[in-house]
Amino acid sequence: MSIPILKLYNYLLISIQTEIDDKTAIQFQEDLLDKIHKTGATGVVIDLTSVEIIDSFIAKVLGDVITMSDLMGAKVVLTGIQPAVAITLIDLGIHMQKVATALDLEQGLIKLYQELGV
Amino acid sequence: MSIPILKLYNYLLISIQTEIDDKTAIQFQEDLLDKIHKTGATGVVIDLTSVEIIDSFIAKVLGDVITMSDLMGAKVVLTGIQPAVAITLIDLGIHMQKVATALDLEQGLIKLYQELGV
Repeated sequence: MSIPILKLYNYLLISIQTEIDDKTAIQFQEDLLDKIHKTGATGVVIDLTSVEIIDSFIAKVLGDVITMSDLMGAKVVLTGIQPAVAITLIDLGIHMQKVATALDLEQGLIKLYQELGV
Repeated sequence: MSIPILKLYNYLLISIQTEIDDKTAIQFQEDLLDKIHKTGATGVVIDLTSVEIIDSFIAKVLGDVITMSDLMGAKVVLTGIQPAVAITLIDLGIHMQKVATALDLEQGLIKLYQELGV
């Protein structure tokens, strides 16, 4: 099953609520870029609140998809990063320096709104 | 994989984007009621834009979950019902008379906001 991507006005919302396997991650990457292209979305919120662990492959895909979205003109905000996930990302050298982060979905939307307007 | 439920302020958003099997449907029913209980959400939008066909079991679960959410105090708006899905629902005698509907996610949120406030 692929990860649903919700369109809300100019933004796309994604909530990852289960551990995802490699195939799902790659599928998600394709789906998101495709949806950005089709909808002309200017902002994306990826909520990781329910993700408790992350492996190196998923972390890399996540880092890549953020850079790719950025190239396509959509700003990504990551929300709800848990302690163990933050530790893994930094341990793997994925610093996500250009990525905005926020506590939860609401804060993520506020962040996009502040930076992009509606 | 279970269907993600996004919390946005007092509302819950769900987008069903793949054909779901019976087990996923039952799991979704439990997850949604559980999330309404935990978050105290007053409104729920279930977006069916990407659902092209629906069988009798899924239709019944959907009808049930709407009635159950209502009992728990959360108003449900169904959005993006496609022609084939509308036909199936009526053919099966599931009239969803008490259910609000709207064209898409944005319209669904506007409908909830009009009826419930924030």
